[in-house]
Amino acid sequence: MKPPSRSPGNRRRATAHAGRHHHRPGELHGPAVLYGFHPVSEALRNPARKQLRLLATENAFARLKEAGIEPRIAPQLVRPQDIDRLLTPDAVHQGLLLEAEPLPAPEIENLPDHALVLVLDQVTDPHNVGAILRTAAAFAVDAVVTTARHSPAATGVLAKSASGGLEHVPFITVQNLARGLEALRERGVLCVGLDSDAPENLEQMALTRPLALVLGAEGKGLRQKTRESCDHTARLDLPGAIKSLNVSNAAAIALHLSVCITGGSMRGMRSTG
Amino acid sequence: MKPPSRSPGNRRRATAHAGRHHHRPGELHGPAVLYGFHPVSEALRNPARKQLRLLATENAFARLKEAGIEPRIAPQLVRPQDIDRLLTPDAVHQGLLLEAEPLPAPEIENLPDHALVLVLDQVTDPHNVGAILRTAAAFAVDAVVTTARHSPAATGVLAKSASGGLEHVPFITVQNLARGLEALRERGVLCVGLDSDAPENLEQMALTRPLALVLGAEGKGLRQKTRESCDHTARLDLPGAIKSLNVSNAAAIALHLSVCITGGSMRGMRSTG
Repeated sequence: MKPPSRSPGNRRRATAHAGRHHHRPGELHGPAVLYGFHPVSEALRNPARKQLRLLATENAFARLKEAGIEPRIAPQLVRPQDIDRLLTPDAVHQGLLLEAEPLPAPEIENLPDHALVLVLDQVTDPHNVGAILRTAAAFAVDAVVTTARHSPAATGVLAKSASGGLEHVPFITVQNLARGLEALRERGVLCVGLDSDAPENLEQMALTRPLALVLGAEGKGLRQKTRESCDHTARLDLPGAIKSLNVSNAAAIALHLSVCITGGSMRGMRSTG
Repeated sequence: MKPPSRSPGNRRRATAHAGRHHHRPGELHGPAVLYGFHPVSEALRNPARKQLRLLATENAFARLKEAGIEPRIAPQLVRPQDIDRLLTPDAVHQGLLLEAEPLPAPEIENLPDHALVLVLDQVTDPHNVGAILRTAAAFAVDAVVTTARHSPAATGVLAKSASGGLEHVPFITVQNLARGLEALRERGVLCVGLDSDAPENLEQMALTRPLALVLGAEGKGLRQKTRESCDHTARLDLPGAIKSLNVSNAAAIALHLSVCITGGSMRGMRSTG
């Protein structure tokens, strides 16, 4: 077994990434650091993901092979504590760490005509963004639009919470969210901001594709400028005592509703409603 | 300011609770330890919550008063670090810690005729159970049924993630989940287990109230015995590349769908579907 210390430059960058999130989604400099079985195995299966360095314990490498995954680069076989040293103490890496290039981001102009997009307005918690990305991948979302600042990097904790979703939903990083929304509307995308105080109910809106759902940070909600840049705002109807949801839970319900309304999968609901 | 050390017995219990989750939901011995603005303020507003001890910084106490909240017990005014010492290092307490009696749990036989219930089969992550509880409160869920073992305590991290939801949705703790499901079915509750491999789609089921949605742990899903104890199993239809959701995201979609189908709030969806 070779220790992974032959590449001290990479190691320093990996530590900075995983622990402090210096890099932003979509930035082309600085690799993404992925750890844990699902994030690493989905990245290794992804032909668009340029692999830079793979650290694996013997057990974890055997598990990859059992799953039929053949990395395009030779792994450095290491002990678990060699990976521990590169990550924060609470990172559950399951014996796998992959450094890879960030995924290429599409241009807003090139989004498909039937696109479904999520726009995140300063949602900073990487656990929440990761859970949103996982659900976005489950609903075949075409892209997540975020700002370069006030967004967690597409690496480390976010990738872990996304449980492989990062490989299926590209980030489009914009400098200014209002201008990003403007570009989406120029592309013909209907932009609907979720806002618990909005007079309209998302269920009752005539949603059409291409569609962007715009989500604000917990507590703060959408910024004024963001709200003004949407075509409409809408609320989720919540009959109970608590009137706001965890942002990933709100995203899940809004995506499901949007796919039902615009995708025509309403058969069962109509027959029983 | 008096330091909170006059009550060392309580303090020891508080530490054990917050850090290690020794107690289980619904257990009558051992207080719940709540911290953070939303969990503590919602508990102070809840007439059913017996308050035992309140620690507050002067700023946090002023914020409570601004929100119109009058605790029924006199707070001990403390410094932030006095609360720090009672909790794990990552606990964001915002200057508030309340020890309170666990909430009384209803009996399954006494659930209302239109009841909506969640059943959790060994969902152990307190962040996930907390997010589920918050969403359950938003959808006016009547109770969450869990097992005494393999469930996080209704305290600390769970209460924090629930963001006040704990005050609105009681836990019913059962020794054995299969027998709990049997009791629900005897009470006339339709029990539907969520299972990504189920042949039926939840959207297309004729759901009726009283209804229980049964959710398994991430990765493991429902245990065999749990699945067999349900009336039906059903999947969520996920059109994308990832076929499983974070359990709180799955709960959010399933609850929203169930409320739409059984509560008749389908107007908008039908008109556009």
